[in-house]
Amino acid sequence: MKRQFDADLDDLRGRLLRMGSLCEEMVHYAVKVVVERDESHVDAVQGWEREVNSMHIEIDEIALRLIALHQPAAGDLRLLAAAIKINSDLERIGDQAVNIAETGVYLCKEPKIKLGDIPRMVEVAAGMLKDSLDAFARGDTELAREVIKRDDEEDRLKSQTFNELVHLMQRDASSIQRGMDIILIARNLERIADHATNIAEDVIFMVIGKDIRHSVEKI
Amino acid sequence: MKRQFDADLDDLRGRLLRMGSLCEEMVHYAVKVVVERDESHVDAVQGWEREVNSMHIEIDEIALRLIALHQPAAGDLRLLAAAIKINSDLERIGDQAVNIAETGVYLCKEPKIKLGDIPRMVEVAAGMLKDSLDAFARGDTELAREVIKRDDEEDRLKSQTFNELVHLMQRDASSIQRGMDIILIARNLERIADHATNIAEDVIFMVIGKDIRHSVEKI
Repeated sequence: MKRQFDADLDDLRGRLLRMGSLCEEMVHYAVKVVVERDESHVDAVQGWEREVNSMHIEIDEIALRLIALHQPAAGDLRLLAAAIKINSDLERIGDQAVNIAETGVYLCKEPKIKLGDIPRMVEVAAGMLKDSLDAFARGDTELAREVIKRDDEEDRLKSQTFNELVHLMQRDASSIQRGMDIILIARNLERIADHATNIAEDVIFMVIGKDIRHSVEKI
Repeated sequence: MKRQFDADLDDLRGRLLRMGSLCEEMVHYAVKVVVERDESHVDAVQGWEREVNSMHIEIDEIALRLIALHQPAAGDLRLLAAAIKINSDLERIGDQAVNIAETGVYLCKEPKIKLGDIPRMVEVAAGMLKDSLDAFARGDTELAREVIKRDDEEDRLKSQTFNELVHLMQRDASSIQRGMDIILIARNLERIADHATNIAEDVIFMVIGKDIRHSVEKI
């Protein structure tokens, strides 16, 4: 029974990591639509979203079934609780990627516009997502803390992008609709970084059993 | 033991509903900052956020402790899982309210600007939040389905507000910064309606044990 339970937990962890990899791909290709102005990627992103959505439901089901069947305590229960939360953060990252790709499709049809710090924001957010998933896979709290620290950088880049685009819009009224869209994409990327931060916080809780959310002394 | 467990579940439900009421107040007063141009409410909103944040951690702790102690099955386990998810949606609603209030403080210092459909968006989002919490309190799946239906109306109002503000910004460059802020507030309200939709979906799962998220036939 115990051996079976361990195998089931490994299977769950594997599913969550596969879902995470899909979300990484989604972010990667969504951004290609915007930066490379190549709308051909939007179908792939939307297709992956359907996959991510069914994984979302499956993983919740499995986690609840394991809790009901095996009545886990301490560390195993914390892993299952973390799985349920990380599952919901990943699903929302997928939604953000779809938003980015769909806004990108509109932008492909319009004249090129300044992207502000979007390319750097993508790097930071995608890096945070990757590292938060690695931290989950390895139970690595050091890496999780690293991820949490990087969220401030993303917020700074977002504010910079906002300011830059607002100035552009003020100088050139024809850029307003597109400028708005870039600002909304910056918001989407900021949200992805927030979800990666949530995942990192859940990893820390899972490993050391301490809830560090909302604490001033995060690090 | 069973009687104690039932009392503990009632206590948890009560805490979640108190947290929900606080979030309702936060949304209500955050919007007052914007609509009534009265920045005096921002302190209250920020104070409630600190309360909501500690309830967020407490409720998660209690739900996990109850799962570990009582090894609940079926309906009770679904209630506990729903509590963990609703808890996280409420916390994020609190964050959105803080964003609205803080953007509102900036707007109070600037000349008045058109609010588009913001007042109606507030009504819809606040109504959805209230009814999703009532549905949770009473296990009312009919009301939960009602809430889910109303999300489309909120999306429609958001798009209308976007368009109206973009046109204003195109006519009057001095309105760009403020117009952007109204658009971001519309986004915050849309997110609050999304979280209320999540809560309603969790209520349906809790009561009937069926996951209706991502299904085309939601209603």
